[in-house]
Amino acid sequence: MPELRKDPVVGRWVVISTERGNKPTDFANKVEEKKAQATCPFCVGRENATPHEVLAYRPHGGERNGPGWSVRVVPNKFPALMVEGELGRRAEGLYDRMQGVGAHEVIIETPDHVPDFADLPEEQIARVLAAFRERLADLRNDKRLRYGLVFKNHGEAAGASLEHTHAQLIATPILPKAVQEELEGARLYHELKERCVFCDIVDQETAEGNGRRVVRATNRYVTIVPFAARFPFETWILPRRHEPVFEAGGAEQDKELAAILRDVLQRMNAALDRPPYNLVVHTSPYRDTDHEYYHWHIEIMPKLTKIAGFEWGSGFHINPTPPEEAAAYLREVR
Amino acid sequence: MPELRKDPVVGRWVVISTERGNKPTDFANKVEEKKAQATCPFCVGRENATPHEVLAYRPHGGERNGPGWSVRVVPNKFPALMVEGELGRRAEGLYDRMQGVGAHEVIIETPDHVPDFADLPEEQIARVLAAFRERLADLRNDKRLRYGLVFKNHGEAAGASLEHTHAQLIATPILPKAVQEELEGARLYHELKERCVFCDIVDQETAEGNGRRVVRATNRYVTIVPFAARFPFETWILPRRHEPVFEAGGAEQDKELAAILRDVLQRMNAALDRPPYNLVVHTSPYRDTDHEYYHWHIEIMPKLTKIAGFEWGSGFHINPTPPEEAAAYLREVR
Repeated sequence: MPELRKDPVVGRWVVISTERGNKPTDFANKVEEKKAQATCPFCVGRENATPHEVLAYRPHGGERNGPGWSVRVVPNKFPALMVEGELGRRAEGLYDRMQGVGAHEVIIETPDHVPDFADLPEEQIARVLAAFRERLADLRNDKRLRYGLVFKNHGEAAGASLEHTHAQLIATPILPKAVQEELEGARLYHELKERCVFCDIVDQETAEGNGRRVVRATNRYVTIVPFAARFPFETWILPRRHEPVFEAGGAEQDKELAAILRDVLQRMNAALDRPPYNLVVHTSPYRDTDHEYYHWHIEIMPKLTKIAGFEWGSGFHINPTPPEEAAAYLREVR
Repeated sequence: MPELRKDPVVGRWVVISTERGNKPTDFANKVEEKKAQATCPFCVGRENATPHEVLAYRPHGGERNGPGWSVRVVPNKFPALMVEGELGRRAEGLYDRMQGVGAHEVIIETPDHVPDFADLPEEQIARVLAAFRERLADLRNDKRLRYGLVFKNHGEAAGASLEHTHAQLIATPILPKAVQEELEGARLYHELKERCVFCDIVDQETAEGNGRRVVRATNRYVTIVPFAARFPFETWILPRRHEPVFEAGGAEQDKELAAILRDVLQRMNAALDRPPYNLVVHTSPYRDTDHEYYHWHIEIMPKLTKIAGFEWGSGFHINPTPPEEAAAYLREVR
């Protein structure tokens, strides 16, 4: 059973996982098993290579855990958190720990062995976004869970261990520190101004005569390189309309969001030669959903530079590409 | 001139640097120029390949910026922050920015082309630690600076761009977010208990019958794998005696710290086949030095796993090696 432990100084929770490699020899000269098509457990026809599915879209019907699906969600075979069990909060002297209860699922984004999400058709990306919403909404019913985090690691350098395009959902029994900080920042801004900080960002970035950091704007969404981007070519997709909860959207959201998401990923591919990246859906926590000050959005971080001692020690990032220049490249590239 | 920008939501400052590569082609298929001995700018005899030195130890005398040195400190040729200029704080709508004023120095840890710090003799490591102290103390006199961060990136995967062993010092005009959080956590604990949290950690870890997370303990220092380690084989070196400011130490500190630091790095090398790592000196900020609740220490993070979407989105880390097991491996390895 994995365990959650809290740093007694900064209050940062850590998952101590024992389901993965942990001996020194597991790291030394580790050879990555990049599963290619021949043995890929995510390809159609190999449904028995994964745990039983928790969700699948089968437009023309078909058996559970059989072929015929367009998007399929399964528990992670090597989960960071386990869905069964009690939290069992307890102390060890001055330290805090609890059982690693939570959910860890994999969203298989296509039945075919496609390595790049951006190569999927728009309609398929819309189906994937619908699956994100559906799983987030379902896990909300589990009273032990405080937050559902959907993310994608694309490419080995960004932490992906399998080539077949997929996303992950980890739901945690505590509110993660980074989420808490973002909520708190948005709450303070709202208290001061009685406006949502993300709405203000959208307004300022898309104002007449501004737009230097805008990559693309559609009726409902805007893609920007944020003012204080941590990473070169980091981009955010924000809905123009204020909405705290990602999964509150419907088919219309999936469709238009799929279009602008595919657009920015294709621009990144063209400008940066198909870079590895991390994508994170930022949304409201599961309890206290009246976070009126919060505004869901998506953050995409290409993996182009290394995180080193300065970043770990300071929390400060050094970004070598001014956001305005990155936005100009991404605007002009297609 | 680099610029500091603040994220309007979470308050995270970022350095937007323009001294380094910033075009998409600088990242795409980037070939690392790992300078080997033949062209290494840090080797003795190539003093004119670096900016003019700010400190050097020349035990037998010799000319400034000439050979004869044992440790040499120079400004970084591609600095993240610039030492000249005013802060020039200003707004851009809802955003905050200021000039990238600060110091960025390189501590060249030996005149010879040694790639691994752990291979230096103890006396040489002690000289390097003396240089850390001396530079931190000197920069404290610059009233614009709030914090001095000393760190080492060892190995390409940990962000080192040159092979010749070296450390860096970046002094910033703002208190970095990660430092602020650590100080705040220590302050709150002190308010509650009237004791230093790091002193309590040392006591609990070294208590009779405990010690499962202790790698080594000497008269003045203890090396532990912390209870909530973020990374496999992460280790901390803590002084047993309460002292907020690293550079307050003297020759005795350098000597004993060099011994235990070399010891843990050699254990890591043996257990993990010379891993890349980041090392960070955690010390008190420059102003308000009566941080009686703070306790300097060193954190060493081997680079064995990848930081991915989950970590970026949550601030949560997944550590596959229980700290007790990592400590046991490191205890037994030599």
